[in-house]
Order: sequence, then structure tokens, then C-alpha cells
Amino acid sequence: MKAQKAHLKLCTRGGILQTMGNDNAKMNVINRSSRNVRAFISQEKLDVEAFITKYNGQSVDTLLPHSAIKKFCFRPDVPSYRILISENGALPWEKNQYISLFIEDEDDKEICIKHMRFPVFFYLLSVSLGFLCVMFVCLWSGTWRGGFAWDGSFLQFNWHPVLMVTSLVVMYGNAIVLYRVPLTWSRWWCKRAHAGLLFVAMVLSVLGVCAAFDFHTANNIPHLYSLHSWTGISTVALFTLQWFVGLCAFLLPWTPLAFRARLKPLHIWMGIAIFILSLITSLSGINEKLLLTLNGRNGSNTKPYTALPAEALFANSLGIAVVLFGLLVLKLLSSQKWKHPESENETDRVRV
Amino acid sequence: MKAQKAHLKLCTRGGILQTMGNDNAKMNVINRSSRNVRAFISQEKLDVEAFITKYNGQSVDTLLPHSAIKKFCFRPDVPSYRILISENGALPWEKNQYISLFIEDEDDKEICIKHMRFPVFFYLLSVSLGFLCVMFVCLWSGTWRGGFAWDGSFLQFNWHPVLMVTSLVVMYGNAIVLYRVPLTWSRWWCKRAHAGLLFVAMVLSVLGVCAAFDFHTANNIPHLYSLHSWTGISTVALFTLQWFVGLCAFLLPWTPLAFRARLKPLHIWMGIAIFILSLITSLSGINEKLLLTLNGRNGSNTKPYTALPAEALFANSLGIAVVLFGLLVLKLLSSQKWKHPESENETDRVRV
Repeated sequence: MKAQKAHLKLCTRGGILQTMGNDNAKMNVINRSSRNVRAFISQEKLDVEAFITKYNGQSVDTLLPHSAIKKFCFRPDVPSYRILISENGALPWEKNQYISLFIEDEDDKEICIKHMRFPVFFYLLSVSLGFLCVMFVCLWSGTWRGGFAWDGSFLQFNWHPVLMVTSLVVMYGNAIVLYRVPLTWSRWWCKRAHAGLLFVAMVLSVLGVCAAFDFHTANNIPHLYSLHSWTGISTVALFTLQWFVGLCAFLLPWTPLAFRARLKPLHIWMGIAIFILSLITSLSGINEKLLLTLNGRNGSNTKPYTALPAEALFANSLGIAVVLFGLLVLKLLSSQKWKHPESENETDRVRV
Repeated sequence: MKAQKAHLKLCTRGGILQTMGNDNAKMNVINRSSRNVRAFISQEKLDVEAFITKYNGQSVDTLLPHSAIKKFCFRPDVPSYRILISENGALPWEKNQYISLFIEDEDDKEICIKHMRFPVFFYLLSVSLGFLCVMFVCLWSGTWRGGFAWDGSFLQFNWHPVLMVTSLVVMYGNAIVLYRVPLTWSRWWCKRAHAGLLFVAMVLSVLGVCAAFDFHTANNIPHLYSLHSWTGISTVALFTLQWFVGLCAFLLPWTPLAFRARLKPLHIWMGIAIFILSLITSLSGINEKLLLTLNGRNGSNTKPYTALPAEALFANSLGIAVVLFGLLVLKLLSSQKWKHPESENETDRVRV
């Protein structure tokens, strides 16, 4: 069985250096001869001086082998204990830095699993609902609306709901909850999967917009007149902007860490705002499509929307599934407890 | 000048009792003879034993006058320091409880003001946007759509957008950010204002639904066929349920505190979900109304929606204002930093 990380944090809050971690981590510090202790270091500034010498008869080197200081992690929700360390020592690292120790510990796995039971349940539920949304929107366009083409006809427009729901709702939603689950992925891979999934979503959403614009042009329908189109085009524009800013700030290696750290809260908030805009746009879009196609005109044989034919029931259910998927994703995002332990700080490049 | 509260927290994290607060609070403990020290106590369970005897030569009674233990407050974002307290003492309160001290302190006012500059700006912006939304929806229905009546005609339907936007978006939004601003209100008044504002919103939203249903009945239009109506009726139903559950759980005095504390995260999450549902429903409703009325039929003299006449521009702008208002409210709610210091725990009735 692969060993899990336990967390033994050393921080300088209030001017007194201390370690925090669960009891397993504590025992592992004491009996660390058989364990792999790794120390991670951050650039987070603190306004107090840190100091450390002894813990329970052990020297600093036992707690913090210099060679292993690599990376920072902050995880405030793990059950913690505290060890006080006397004041008569010097720091083995720079002043005003925030320190964490990670200790390999099999028993800590249980804590991780217990902590992740709920988010994993919600995540699986949201993945299932996302799959249902894609299936429903494909069936609606593919079966009820006659299938797909790229010839300027209604069949071309059918790509629009499929591509928009798939990209801006389902793929986008899955990409933004990546930092919550699964826990075993490294931050490095989470970032790449997040950016990659969003890149595919961005391409598909632009294609979806093109499908609608081409259809309008071919049928002399003006572009961007409805409220749906106003919110929709804003969503796609903001999404594209957010993706490029995110790429430059968080993936290119030469971005200053201080800039990353300052941008991150805005990036997170914009990401959630764009997702809510996507939900708003999707629902008004499905409603608009049904009002425009099931109106007893256009030579359609179907019953009008007001009579709630099977297609209307089906597409309304798609709308409800989209809402439920969206609320589940927002639920997953809302919990501070389910954050990745390593995703708190922008320190990928700090390798001391 | 009225003195503000500074925070001196005593907590049992890791089995060692300690106080946390800013430097002003620390000084005020030391020189407390001229200050009004109040201790607040919670029912939060911790899995360690707490102990306290001395701080800097002062006795427990100096730090925690028994008579004043009243209420709990937890505010992790206030700049903090820590005092360690030796182990050879007994607790003046129950084991496994979480303790906070509040100290009157004029200097701390500056910290509060600095902390609240951003939320106050966002709050004023959201109030202005909310006012704009109400004004726009009244003008749309009152002027562009011919005014109001309660006679089963289109003029009766005009009440629907006005009442729904006013109640479920603007009043609801203002009611849910009450716990963020203004800081000078007591929790007791925040609760009552929150419940009262939501009660008025609930009554208005039910009236708004009645306006639409009556109009449908008078004009032989089926009820609840569109996706807008499905999300709308769900929103109003969930809102009504949430209000009654909230009343029973958080305002009636005989509800067990443990039940309150367990329900609170769900209550908060449901509140936000209902607000997002309101935004989704409003946007699809405005879009639907424009598609149904500006369709070149119904003997209307106006240009169709596709030609984007002045009314369409106006109502689309209303939709954008609603979205911006909603995102601002969600921004205000999202920040942990802007939480009321006293709103963390359900301890209104704990007066020891």
C-alpha cells in the first residue's frame, strides 16, 4: 500500500514557531528514523520572526533536513496538534517564510479518505449529471430537431446547443472542480488538466457560436438581438479572456509569484462568475429555442410549446439537469474543506 | 466616539489554551482596569481538554470574569498574536468549549474600517444596481408595456416581472448580504431584518406568481409549460420552504442550538442556490417576455425583437443589470473576510 502524506506544519503565527499536525504525524516526527521526512517551503511573508531549536530532545536537523526543503503546503482543516519550540535558536531557512513538513504516514490515509468521502460522492454525482446533460442535449438536437449538418440550415443551428452545453457547462464545470477531486493528483497535473480541459471547452464554445452566427447569416436573421445572445457572447468573451490571462499568469514560468498570488482570487472569482453566466445563458437559450421552434409556425408538425409536447418536456428536463449540475459544481467549489492541500499557494517554481 | 470591540480569542486548539488578538487587544488585557472586558462563550465541541491559570502574572479572573461570559465569537481573519498559558490550572468554564474574549478598544475601530472599505463599496454598488433594476423593470412594464391593472389583461401580467425582480432578485439579494454590512448592527437585529425583508419578498413573489397565473387563466393559456415557469415555480417553492424552516430553526427560541448549528451551513447554501435560481429564472423570463410580445403578432405596432427596437434594448439592459447585481451580491457573500464577527455561531441564547 502506498504511503500517504501526513502534515506537520511549522508556522510563525504570533511570533512563536510551532508545528501542527495530527497525532500520527507527531509520532512520526518522534520515530522518524524509518520514515521519509520532506520539508516544503513557501514565500508567504509573515510579519514576525521565526525561531526553532529543539523539540523533545531532537535537533532542528531532525525536523528539517536542509536537502529536502522543496515545496509549500498549507492545509488548515486537518486535525492538528501543536508542539512548542524554545526561543534560543536560529532559523535554518530565510526569515519571514512559512514552513511545512510533510511526513509519509500510512495511517493518515484514513483521515484523507474520511475527509474526501463527501466531495467524491458529490463529484461522482456531478459527473453523472454532466453526462446526462450532454446525452440529453445531443438527443434533443440529434433526434427531436432532425440531426446535424454544416450547411446554414436548422441542422447547422443544432450544433449550437450541443456545443455550448458540452463546453461551457459540462466541460467547464468539470475543469473548475478539478482542484477539489481527486486528491492523489499533483498540483502540476491539476493545473495542466484544468487548462487543457478549458482549452478544449473554449474551442468548442467558439465553434458553437460560429454555428449560430453562420445559421443567422444564411437565413438573414440578425445577430445578437436577444438577451440570451447578449449574455452568451459576454460569457464566451470573458471565458476566452480568462483563459489567456490564466495561461500567462499561472502556466508560463516567468510570471512573478507575487503577481500570481494577487491575481489568483480574481481568477477564481471570475471563473465562478463565468460559470454562473453559462448557466443563465444555457437556460434562457433552451427556453428561447423552444419558444421559437414550438410556436405553431415554421411549417412544424409538432404541438406548440404551450401544449407541453414530449419534446418540450424533454428539453425542459435538460434545463433542470443543467441547473442541478451547476448547483452541484458550485457546492463542490464552495467548501473550503475540500481544497487540495497543495493548491493554497502559487509556489510551483520554488525549489530550494 | 463609541468604542469598538477588539478580539482576544482563547481557544483550545491542540490542547494548549491560548489567546489570540491584535496588539491593541493584548495591551487592553494588560491595562484592562479602565476597559470593559466581556467574555463570550460557545458550545463548539473540541476534542481536547482546555486549561488556564496565569497570563503574565495575571489571574484567570482578570482574563475571564465569570459574570460576563455571555456569547461566542470567532473571527479568524483579524491580525492575531498568541499568549501561552501554563498547564497547572482549572477551567472556569465547561470542558470542550471554545472561548472568546471581546475587549472594548477604540484603536481597533481603524482595523474594522480598513477591513470594511471594500465590502461597503461593493454593497453601495449593489444597492445602486438593485435600485436601477427595480426602476428599469417598472419603466418597462409601466411605460413600454402599457402600465398596470388586475383585470386578467396583459396589464395584469405586467405586475409579474415587476414583482418578481423586486422580490426574488433585489430584496432577496439585499436580505442575504445583510450579514456582511453594516457591521455596527447587532446580530439580533441582522436576523430580524433578514427574516423581515425576506418575508416581504416572499409575499411579493407569491403575488407576482398569482399575477401570471390569473392572466393565464383569463386568457386560456396553460400554466407551467415553459422552462422559465419550471425554474420559477421551483424557486418560489424552495424560497417559501426555506423561509419557514429558517423561521422555526433560527428565530423561535425553543430550537436546540445543536440543531441550529447543524442546519446553518445547509440554510446558507440553500439561500445562495435559491438566489442563483432567481437570476436564472429572471433572465429567461425577460427573454421569454420579449420573444412572446415583440414577435410581430398580437396586433402590436412595435418592431420585432430581431430588429432590436428601443424596448428590446431597454429590457436587455435590464437583464444585464440583474446579472451584474447578482454577481455583486455573490461576490459580497463569497468573502470570508467580510463576515460579521458575531455571525459565526448560533449562540444567541447562550447567556451564562
